[in-house]
This record gives sequence, C-alpha cells and structure tokens, in this order.
Amino acid sequence: MRIARIATEDGPRPVVQDGHYWREVLDPFADNPAYTGRHHPVDATRLLAPVQPTVVVGLTHSGSRDDRAPHPQAFTKSARTVTGPGGVVAVDDDLGQVNIETELAIVIRRSCRRVTVDTALENVLGYTIANDVTLADQMLLDRTMTQAKNGDGFTPLGPWIETDLDPRSLSMSTHVNGDTVATASTAHLAWTVAEQLTYLTRYLRLGPGDVVLTGCPGTFAPVKPGDQAVVAIDGIGELSNPIRTSPMSP
Amino acid sequence: MRIARIATEDGPRPVVQDGHYWREVLDPFADNPAYTGRHHPVDATRLLAPVQPTVVVGLTHSGSRDDRAPHPQAFTKSARTVTGPGGVVAVDDDLGQVNIETELAIVIRRSCRRVTVDTALENVLGYTIANDVTLADQMLLDRTMTQAKNGDGFTPLGPWIETDLDPRSLSMSTHVNGDTVATASTAHLAWTVAEQLTYLTRYLRLGPGDVVLTGCPGTFAPVKPGDQAVVAIDGIGELSNPIRTSPMSP
Repeated sequence: MRIARIATEDGPRPVVQDGHYWREVLDPFADNPAYTGRHHPVDATRLLAPVQPTVVVGLTHSGSRDDRAPHPQAFTKSARTVTGPGGVVAVDDDLGQVNIETELAIVIRRSCRRVTVDTALENVLGYTIANDVTLADQMLLDRTMTQAKNGDGFTPLGPWIETDLDPRSLSMSTHVNGDTVATASTAHLAWTVAEQLTYLTRYLRLGPGDVVLTGCPGTFAPVKPGDQAVVAIDGIGELSNPIRTSPMSP
Repeated sequence: MRIARIATEDGPRPVVQDGHYWREVLDPFADNPAYTGRHHPVDATRLLAPVQPTVVVGLTHSGSRDDRAPHPQAFTKSARTVTGPGGVVAVDDDLGQVNIETELAIVIRRSCRRVTVDTALENVLGYTIANDVTLADQMLLDRTMTQAKNGDGFTPLGPWIETDLDPRSLSMSTHVNGDTVATASTAHLAWTVAEQLTYLTRYLRLGPGDVVLTGCPGTFAPVKPGDQAVVAIDGIGELSNPIRTSPMSP
C-alpha cells in the first residue's frame, strides 16, 4: 500500500493510492484504514510530507558496517524542519557548508517503547525517503548536533510511504542539478531497522507518524543556493527539493 | 496574565485566570486572546501542561556565570516527554541514576528566527516551570544526550504561564519528599533569556508553544521510584510530580 498526504481545498488529507486516484482515509495509522469516499486524481494533486511527526530522530555513526562498534548513537531533530516534495531547503550564508544526505526513513505506526529485535517491525507503518540536510561545519562545533541539523526545511520527507517493502537491500542515490553524485544501498547501513528501533526505544517512546532517519551510507553531497537536490531510493521513488538562500540569512 | 491549560469534559482547553475562575480563550498566542464565554472554577479544575510544544530545547553548560565561555550549547528533547502537574515521571531500572532539575522555561509566542538581543523578548509569551529530568549516567555515555533526556514524563511543565514576569532574578528551589534539597536563582544562569533566544534562533526556528529550558543553576537532585519531586520558582509557583518505576522497565 502507498500512503501519502495531499493538499486539498479543505486542507491536508491522508490518502492511499488506488490506480490513478488517491483515496482519502480517516486515519492512516489504523489497522484497517477507513475510506471517506472522496478521491483525487493522482496527476492533479500536490504531495505534502507524508506525515507530520512529533519526533524526528536520526542515527549517526551509521554510515557503514564498520560503524557497528561500540553501539548506535542518535540525535533528535526539530519537527519544524519537516517539509515535503518541492519544499525549500533554506540555508543561511554564515553557517558554512551544507550537505544533503539520502536516507531511508522509518515511519512509526503506533506508540512503542522497549521493542525487541523480534517485535520491532510490528510498530512500523512503512518507509519513505528523507533528506537529512546537515551543516557540515557546525557538526564540528556542536557535539549535540543542534546547530547542524535544524535549519528551515532541513528534513524533506516523501514522496510517500510504501508499506510493503523489504528495507534490507534498496539502492540509494543522490543527485544535484541532474548529476548523480553518490550511490549506495541500505545494505551498507551499520544497523538494521529492527536493531535501530530496539536501540532507540530503550531510551525514548516513538508514536504514530514519528520518523527515524536510518543513517547516511556515504549518500551525502555538498549543495549551495540555486541547486536542485534529488534523493532517491529504489522501491519508493525520489524526492526533489530546491536549495535557496534563507530570507533570514544575514 | 496567568495562562493555563485545563482538562474539561470536551477535552483540553486553554484558559486565563480571572479571580476564582479560569476563563476559556480561543488562542492563547493571539495578541488579544478572545474569550469563548465559558469559565471553570479554579478549585475544581485539573491543570495540564500549559502548552503542547512542537520543539523542546534546553540549554546545557548554563549552570553558572562561569559557563559563559566559549558559547551556549543546546539539546533538543522529544515533545513526547512533556507532562503536566501530577504527571508520572517513569524511570527504567536499568538506565542508572535519575536527576530532577528545576529550570525556568520560556514559552514562545510566535514563529521566530534570527532574533537579536534587542528583539528577542517580543517573541516570548511568558514563563513556566520545567523539571528537566535527566539520566545522569547516560549523560556520560551519549554526547548528543538522546539517551539521557527522553524518558516517559521526563519534561513536566507547569503549573501555568505567567506573562508579566521579569525573569532575571527569581528564586528557584528543588524539593524531594518535602525536603528542600537545592536552592538557587535565575540570576545564576550563564545566559540571559534574550541571549539564549539569540543563540538558538540563529540555528533553528521556534514557534507558538515551543519551550526553552534555560538551564540548571545547581538546582538538581537525585530521585528514585516512590519519591515526590517538587520544583518551584518564585513568581510562578510549584510543580509536583511523582517518580515511579516505568511499566516498561525490564
């Protein structure tokens, strides 16, 4: 099943794809989502970020199989950084180098803590693509990563959630202005989806719509204002966002 | 003005105190909040966390005037950690020492980035009390503080927001089971409210209802399941929460 969130004249609505139509659902996190009866042509709708998370958490030191020692590590990211397909990534001129990062994003289905590797996947609604935009120079200045990860539009999500997807070996790619600048696979991630959720939920609760950014296996690239960033994962699709100078930039 | 959020039979409602009554308002962040016409006796209502923030961000290395060098540092905290007066702080037996921390919390009124020391306070709705519960042993294991700050109920907020308050020199105290275990003043904080907002909004956007935990000037104390924690700040009030073993504890 493919789940999205679209702009309608009545506001954002969760939808499920049915051929050439998006069919509105009441609650995409329900076990059996109920349809409202309204539908929208796929080729005439604007996609939004597929969820509005309360918690956005990302794995660091998760870039290769060598990163498995000694244990995972994670950072939380402001939910105000989330944007959708086409949303502007706004960068400030005085904060240094900006990197885009193609990442598989886990979308959580229900409230969970202390999951085990055996039960972890029961809490997953599906997977989408995230661009974990990062200020590279700020990473060196702030061990908590707060300065590096929280600019306006720094977490593009989309284009939609795929619920029937095996996340273990998906091709990933990063593109700037039409050039392919990095390729990898989710198989290169240090930790599996189940291992990541087991680690995270030992310390914090995840709930419906929360998003876990699973790490960047070399899929990063520098960008600058004026660039168009595309992050892509096979089996999901691609997510395209413009990089612009922030109107708040000094 | 004193702003709270109360439980009603129709769900949580924002309210403003008027003598012995809480008067419902439509939008506590509006320049001139409009009243709905409904009111509730103060002595017959249950207080909730006064806001439901999207972003909870805390200052670290803010414990004394000596912490001013080289610059502020901050961590983000899951918004799912927020609870209100009386809400349970749930601790897991295998995660080590739990500390409570009395902190002045800034409540943000409107969307803002890149404020200056001169404009910062225009973006403040008022002040409440936070208990920034922290796993002391996890602080040593995780430089991002994700493991230390995000347990269930780890951000009690309340009892209400005071909008007409000078935050510069308020007495603070920390109490466990009725004993006063720490006292300090907001005058001991390394950075003023305006300086903190200037630092934070250089890197991230704050918006209505967001909360900044301004730092712990020695107002921490260890607690264990069964304890009752009270954090108090003169001019606001006190916030009391029970410490309990998490039902998720192994």
